[in-house]
Formats: sequence, C-alpha cells, structure tokens
Amino acid sequence: MAIMIFVTGGTFDKEYDEVKEQLIFVETHVPQMLKLGRCKVDVNIRTIMLIDSLNMTDEDRQIILDNCKKAKEDMIIITHGTSTMEVTARFLGKSIKDKTIVLTGAMSPYAFGSSDGLFNLGCALAFAQILPHGVYVAMNGRYFTWDNVRKNEKLGIFEEIK
Amino acid sequence: MAIMIFVTGGTFDKEYDEVKEQLIFVETHVPQMLKLGRCKVDVNIRTIMLIDSLNMTDEDRQIILDNCKKAKEDMIIITHGTSTMEVTARFLGKSIKDKTIVLTGAMSPYAFGSSDGLFNLGCALAFAQILPHGVYVAMNGRYFTWDNVRKNEKLGIFEEIK
Amino acid sequence: MAIMIFVTGGTFDKEYDEVKEQLIFVETHVPQMLKLGRCKVDVNIRTIMLIDSLNMTDEDRQIILDNCKKAKEDMIIITHGTSTMEVTARFLGKSIKDKTIVLTGAMSPYAFGSSDGLFNLGCALAFAQILPHGVYVAMNGRYFTWDNVRKNEKLGIFEEIK
Amino acid sequence: MAIMIFVTGGTFDKEYDEVKEQLIFVETHVPQMLKLGRCKVDVNIRTIMLIDSLNMTDEDRQIILDNCKKAKEDMIIITHGTSTMEVTARFLGKSIKDKTIVLTGAMSPYAFGSSDGLFNLGCALAFAQILPHGVYVAMNGRYFTWDNVRKNEKLGIFEEIK
Repeated sequence: MAIMIFVTGGTFDKEYDEVKEQLIFVETHVPQMLKLGRCKVDVNIRTIMLIDSLNMTDEDRQIILDNCKKAKEDMIIITHGTSTMEVTARFLGKSIKDKTIVLTGAMSPYAFGSSDGLFNLGCALAFAQILPHGVYVAMNGRYFTWDNVRKNEKLGIFEEIK
Repeated sequence: MAIMIFVTGGTFDKEYDEVKEQLIFVETHVPQMLKLGRCKVDVNIRTIMLIDSLNMTDEDRQIILDNCKKAKEDMIIITHGTSTMEVTARFLGKSIKDKTIVLTGAMSPYAFGSSDGLFNLGCALAFAQILPHGVYVAMNGRYFTWDNVRKNEKLGIFEEIK
Repeated sequence: MAIMIFVTGGTFDKEYDEVKEQLIFVETHVPQMLKLGRCKVDVNIRTIMLIDSLNMTDEDRQIILDNCKKAKEDMIIITHGTSTMEVTARFLGKSIKDKTIVLTGAMSPYAFGSSDGLFNLGCALAFAQILPHGVYVAMNGRYFTWDNVRKNEKLGIFEEIK
Repeated sequence: MAIMIFVTGGTFDKEYDEVKEQLIFVETHVPQMLKLGRCKVDVNIRTIMLIDSLNMTDEDRQIILDNCKKAKEDMIIITHGTSTMEVTARFLGKSIKDKTIVLTGAMSPYAFGSSDGLFNLGCALAFAQILPHGVYVAMNGRYFTWDNVRKNEKLGIFEEIK
C-alpha cells in the first residue's frame, strides 16, 4: 500500500536564490531525498503548495484537509513549515480520523549542508507505516499526537504541551 | 525511556584515509548524525566494535547478543554492515524476544556526500520506538522481521525472502 | 611571506539562522575553508567587518583601505559581497599601488551545499601570490583589474567594462 | 585563449561503488566542479585516462606528454594522482618548455564531503593563467616548479626538495 507525501513548503524546501540574494521556493527536494535514502517503499508525491507556514491561512489548511480526505492512500506524510505545523496538525486532527497522517519539516533547508530534513523524512516515513490512524507531528526524532504538541520557539524544538 | 544504539561498523561509519588512500574506521558518526537531526529522544551510544560485516564472526555476534541482553534499555538500534546484516538479525532473533531491536546500516558511507545513512538512522529510530518486541532490519525506508529478510546483492537493496 | 586575508562579509560568509529563519553572519568560514583545502601557505586572517556589501558605506571602505595600508603583508585578499565589490575595488585601486590586493566573494554562501566560495578562495590565493602590485577582482575563475570590472546583475557574473 | 584540462585520474576523481564496496573511477567531476565555481574562463576538458597514479607507467606518461605537445592551447592543467605527481611533473618538465602546464590533484576524493579538490582546481586555474611557460605542481595553495617538488607521504603535503 503506497504512502502519499503532500508537499506544502516550509524551511524544508527553501533554496538560496543568488540573483535576488534571498531564500525562495523552486520545487520540492523530496524525490531526490527519497532517492538518496534508497527508499524502496511505494511513495506518491504531490506538491499542494510551496509557502512559508507563517503565511498559511485557513483556506490553505482546508485545501490540505481536502487533499487528505480525497487521497486513496491511508498513510500520508505532509511536509510543512515548522512555524505553524501544530496549527495545521490540530486543524486536521479534529476532522480526519480514518488515516495515519504525519506532519514533518526541517529547522534548516535541505538544500543547505547541515539540515535535519533527511533525518526527519526518514522518521516520518517509518512512523507513517506503523502508527495507528490519527494525526501526528514527527520532529526531533520522535512523534507527538496532534492535540499534544507545540513548537518551543526559543529552543527551536518541538515538545508536548502536557 | 532511553534508546540504546550499539555501533558495530559497516559502510555506515567508514571514512577515507588520505595517507593510506583507503577506507578505514576511526570512530562512529552517530553522535553528529543525531545532532544534525536535532534528535531530542533520549539516546545512549556504545561502540561495541568497528568492523566490516564481511569479517564478522560468530564470536562477534555473541558479543553483540550479550550486549543486547545486558542492556537496561528495551529499545535497541544496531548499526551494522549490510553484507551480513541478515545473518546477525537471525542470530539475534532466535535468542532474544523481550526487546525491540532494529538493525540498520548504509550502502554509502555517511562521511561521503550521497549517503543513505542519515535517512536510515531516522527510520530506525522511529521503528525502534513503535515496533513490538522482536528483531528487525530497517533499510530502504521500510522494516523487515529477522526471519524474512535478505540483501539482494545485485540490486543493492533489502527484500523479503517470501 | 605571509598573505593577509581581510574578511568583510558578503554572501560568502552568510549562514542560515533557524530560529530567526533568515540569513545572518556569525563568523567567517575562511579558516575552515583553508583547512579543507589543506592550504600550507602562510596566511593571516582578520575579520574587519561582517556586512552585506549593499550596506557598505564609504566610511567602511576607508576602514578597509586603512587596514590594507597598515598591513605588513604586501599580498592581501579581501572577501567581500559581490554587490559592490567593484566599488570597493575602484576605491582601493585609486589609493594603493604598492601591494597586490585581490577581492573575491561568492554568489552562494559557503555554508550551503553548492557554493563557489571554496573555488574562488583558491583562485584568489593563487592570484595574490603571482600578480604584480595592483588591485584586482577574482571571480568566475579569472581576474580583473580594478578599473575594468563590473558585476552583470542579470547573469550573476563578473565581466570587463571594456 | 582557452585552457585545456587533461584528466588522468587519481584520488581527485574517485567515487564509492556501493555494490563492490570499493573506490572506483566512473567519469571525471571536473565539469561539475567548474560549474559549481561559476567558472567563466574558456576551458576544454579531455579525459586521457582514469587511473591511480601508483599504477602509472612511462607509457602512460608518454601519452600525457604527447597530448600536451599536440594541444593547441598553451595553458594546460593536468588532474593527477598525488602519489606520483612529481614523477610526471619531472617527465614533462624535461621535455616541454613552450607551454604553462600545472599539475594538481586532491588528497580526498571530490565526491566525498571534505575534499580539497575544488580549492586545488581553483588554484591551478589561476596559476595556469599567470605563470610563465614551464611545468608546475599546484597543491596546498601554492605552486612548485617541476624540478623542486616532492610529496611528503608522512604529512600528506607537497614541499620543495630544497
């Protein structure tokens, strides 16, 4: 059974534009990351949007939710900016119960040397295959349920709300 | 509850020695890989040996087994060469039933540019936290049970024996 | 005879700050780049400033000029942003005739994967050792005299004014 | 006037073959290195051979010499293994006086993370454009004349014979 990866953007997929001298989106790096990982799991990839999650609106989240509902796969990974990953997790967690959905991202762009992106993608792929139906965030090597996660902006990590 | 990572060597941890002009072991890269992944899971690391798994003997495997039994952790990852990973998996699978043990490795050394090492470590870390007690191999983005895995030398991937 | 490397900033030394989610300066990467290149030439490094050259003022350029004049070395490399590298080159070229001064930089930060920084530093180091006294820009694998160089913003390369 | 780059192999261009689990040659990385450096100098590239310089014979050196003589370019770079780079430099230096020929290589393969290859190529490219006719070795950020260079195997660097 295939896994669907929905790409929505975030630091995970940012690149450096040397003419504009700023960070931009061009296209997702997920295919080359899966190739690097020699991933042999059946995976479909769909770029829904490529935005900074600070700019994500409820309309954007509705689009993500609709895509999750319409997907024939019941194992879904969503690459997402870390700034509002917990907001999208809660939005999805309230509405969708019959799939395993794992949100992940990166603190540093995959396109740069010292990124957590490849590690996080590996974690998310494994969690998506095993966790029971529900919505989760996978960051920092662990998973959180959608209703018990927040980003600690000061430390730059994810933690339980407790 | 902490996860124990036992390092045994393999391509995963090879480096290039520019004086001898060959691949050698110096020390494991697992700590820096976990740091790169911003891993916040409680992890202990112990280098048991640093050898090519082609050179691994049953005495070596017994040492690995003893370490697994003595560990207070019940979630264990073993980094291992891919050549005989399935042999060690079977050796452990027959003897140890009360822990979750996940063997992983890499087809290309982490020290080189295009390695699957970081991706595999992320997968293994996630599988170790979720899979029920038993011995597994985590490669190519998926997991295999110890009694149903082999390395396809021609394709350079792991598959079920079926 | 040692070579002096004056660091002034520019894209060359930018890094990604994952908390602020933007490009910043922390400290120069020149020492680690020279180590990577196994450079055995006698080199002194001094960070004069770490700024975007778009923000460089004539006061800043006077500081750079004063440092060049006071240096006991007569072979000097200046790492600099590409945006106004030619402006600083002309500023220095008019005033300093008794040293070999080579300005260089990068279109992509060294801290990222696909940077021209290491290549440019190698070129600049070689040019500084051989070119006669004068002020030069070294980019794109070649050198330009201070009075015949400009940055082609559209193509992102340096060329002669002719 | 174009620069000719003759590729002969050496650690510079080695890669890791994950099936054979050893270092091999596939094809030269010089084109992608020049692209990474945003090199705009006119360069022609020709792979003469891809061998470990420990295995280089006098017949091989004669082939390199013939290629140098026949080249229409009078600025030539030769990528070469470091083990016998000085031998080839002396072989060429005795026979060819009317061109600028710069031999360079790397202590660590470009295909791996921490290589001096890109830095050395930048140095060599700059030296080739400026040095007077003669045969040189460019390593460790500096150049040596063909009759005054040797590799210090213990330290892994190049030095003058003095």
